Amino acid sequence: MKSVNIGLIGLGTIGRGVYDVIENSGELISKRTGISLSVKAVCDSDKKALEEIDNKNILKTSLAEDIINNSDIDIIVELIGGIEPARGIVLNALKNGKHVVTANKALLSGNWNEIFKAAAENEVFVNFEASVGGAIPIIRTLCMSFVADNIQTVYGILNGTTNFILTEMSEKGCSFDAALKVAQEKGIAESDPDLDISGADSAHKLAILALLGFGVNVSGKDVYTEGISLIGSEDICNAADWGYSIKLLAIAKDVAGGLELRVHPTLMKSSHLLSGVKGADNAVFVKGDLIGESLLFGKGAGRKPTSSSVVGDIVEIARRIVSDGGKNSLPYNFCYMPEGKKISCIEDLMIPYYLRFSVIDKPGVLAGISSILADNEISIANVSQKERKEGETVPVVILTHKAKEGNMRKAIEKINNRDSITAKTVVIRIEE
Amino acid sequence: MKSVNIGLIGLGTIGRGVYDVIENSGELISKRTGISLSVKAVCDSDKKALEEIDNKNILKTSLAEDIINNSDIDIIVELIGGIEPARGIVLNALKNGKHVVTANKALLSGNWNEIFKAAAENEVFVNFEASVGGAIPIIRTLCMSFVADNIQTVYGILNGTTNFILTEMSEKGCSFDAALKVAQEKGIAESDPDLDISGADSAHKLAILALLGFGVNVSGKDVYTEGISLIGSEDICNAADWGYSIKLLAIAKDVAGGLELRVHPTLMKSSHLLSGVKGADNAVFVKGDLIGESLLFGKGAGRKPTSSSVVGDIVEIARRIVSDGGKNSLPYNFCYMPEGKKISCIEDLMIPYYLRFSVIDKPGVLAGISSILADNEISIANVSQKERKEGETVPVVILTHKAKEGNMRKAIEKINNRDSITAKTVVIRIEE
Repeated sequence: MKSVNIGLIGLGTIGRGVYDVIENSGELISKRTGISLSVKAVCDSDKKALEEIDNKNILKTSLAEDIINNSDIDIIVELIGGIEPARGIVLNALKNGKHVVTANKALLSGNWNEIFKAAAENEVFVNFEASVGGAIPIIRTLCMSFVADNIQTVYGILNGTTNFILTEMSEKGCSFDAALKVAQEKGIAESDPDLDISGADSAHKLAILALLGFGVNVSGKDVYTEGISLIGSEDICNAADWGYSIKLLAIAKDVAGGLELRVHPTLMKSSHLLSGVKGADNAVFVKGDLIGESLLFGKGAGRKPTSSSVVGDIVEIARRIVSDGGKNSLPYNFCYMPEGKKISCIEDLMIPYYLRFSVIDKPGVLAGISSILADNEISIANVSQKERKEGETVPVVILTHKAKEGNMRKAIEKINNRDSITAKTVVIRIEE
Repeated sequence: MKSVNIGLIGLGTIGRGVYDVIENSGELISKRTGISLSVKAVCDSDKKALEEIDNKNILKTSLAEDIINNSDIDIIVELIGGIEPARGIVLNALKNGKHVVTANKALLSGNWNEIFKAAAENEVFVNFEASVGGAIPIIRTLCMSFVADNIQTVYGILNGTTNFILTEMSEKGCSFDAALKVAQEKGIAESDPDLDISGADSAHKLAILALLGFGVNVSGKDVYTEGISLIGSEDICNAADWGYSIKLLAIAKDVAGGLELRVHPTLMKSSHLLSGVKGADNAVFVKGDLIGESLLFGKGAGRKPTSSSVVGDIVEIARRIVSDGGKNSLPYNFCYMPEGKKISCIEDLMIPYYLRFSVIDKPGVLAGISSILADNEISIANVSQKERKEGETVPVVILTHKAKEGNMRKAIEKINNRDSITAKTVVIRIEE
């Protein structure tokens, strides 16, 4: 049985999980592949984490260099997260001829060129399946299975925390704040949940999918991003009445004018498969010119699912090492988008909208709103006012036909300034 | 740009599709991979199919040997289907050191050992993603992404024809025969639809998934198989009333007593993601000890989706050829199931059932049925009789708690022999 040696850097939730999976599933992996995986060294700045690795044959160190410079080690697994020191560790590992497996979406989505240039120069592999969607094999699928397809659309539910909150609001009828509290109690949301609920985490992941699907080199900052904190439980109810669910969707779409990249709460038809993705689960929907519509669903986070994905990446490289020495003389050519093709400006988006106005219930208010919408070339598809409380604030919900985002923003600003409007209008885009 | 040369054997729907994809998407593939795919030769017994390939630089032949023995060709793509002559062609290609890509489920599921032994001896690759689920990347996912997982359950909707028929019956309320006719008119069902509606096609595919997921070497014949022709539209209605849909499910399940392998109509909770798989679409649900629950959804057949999948397989091998010569010195070790582990006998299955009896509406009939069920240790969970027509035939529907299949068969045989039963009882298993 041929052996492949691994150095693990970072023994947090996922790092320790990867160690455990190799320990517990090593025999199964050997049966399936004929390869023995062996963790030779682990690195963490936390001494307690090192002590908990109960194996005297393993080098335990707080210095990443001890692993990067260890000539016995074939594959470095970077699971510390964040930009630095992860970036330096990965680059040095590549320069030392080590293959790298990482789940670090923040690092990758901002540093593609540097990392893959170093990998190519040193003829080694960088695998990163766990950087998007935990146990969902979307990276391998886009790079390998769908390599012949012109990808038209990617829709992702890429963040378990926000999907859990929206599901909780939908099923329990509770507020955003109450649902967030439940998520925090269950360990699904961090005590500082901003990275998730702001949509920033989804934007990082969408940048990676956009690179693989559309050949465009972008970071999370290039993705137009809105979070979910303004969604009310009444919006979820209203959407349901019209046959929609509300999801925080990460969208990459190849359109005539360019490439749309955006993360925002979205009304989706309840019959769409993505509407069935509940709780902390994730899913990615891909439409291509050959494959048609495709969906991959699974756990987007958590120790076991993410560790499984990391170990899948390790085994893929291990097979190459054992079979033919693991020389990567043909790196993926990620950035191939034609020069002229641009990321669309959000102001140019043409899309239908859900609008919830908080208005004083008195004659002429709806006429006022309608005329501002009309002035901005926004055409109404549906209006609903369920409550009647003369002189008090009531919600009025409008679904529009496709309208230009720039026009919508002008109209909403004007409407929000009217005396008869008592709170900021809730604006949610609808994907048909 | 490095070039990889391909010989296409079989120019039917998929073969011609693969040719077209390489022609039309070749530039995109080159941008993404740095590899130029080149079809050097095509083979078909149909002269017209050969003539339609409008390229003078391509060798056109009706003899597979011309391609197998051509030293310019790196990868042979076998798309003629069926056992012979496909088997001989694939084995000879492997012996000549050619890599093979095939979509031939019938060939693979009956000839694993022979084919993969020949591949290993000649250090070449055999890829077969398109053999199950068209554009759904389930083969690559099981072999690579989920390599560390103890797979517990695989549920597949693996046949588009039967799923289309069941969806049509559900949505239009029509009979099986009427839905089959629509499927035939749309080209979704063959004029002789037996391979699909009998479940045999699903059984072939399940055998492949069982090998990859559970390491058991079986053919379609080893899978207990029932088709959908006995399902009535009333069964679909009744199931919906209780919150279920009816799907032809291919099931592989690791249970204490062994490995369950079965294809049959199944009641599934309407909230299960598989219930949302409509029309001719396919999906595979996989549960593993690490990944948890995962679902892959997509087109299961058709020229473009299947061709995309075949080309993905070609590119995977082409990358190996260009990067390091494409020597496969480490073939997948597919058959690793422990010796003691057996395929469970269908009679030992413990599962809840949906039963539809056609009974004469008269006093004592239900009591008679109930007592036979009780005698066979079958406990009733729900009874429904909607119609009342004294002295005439009415349907009585019963849902049972978990019962042993062997007992159920005895009970149903006894019940079917009673004078008050006017038609064969419909028995459908329920997966909870």
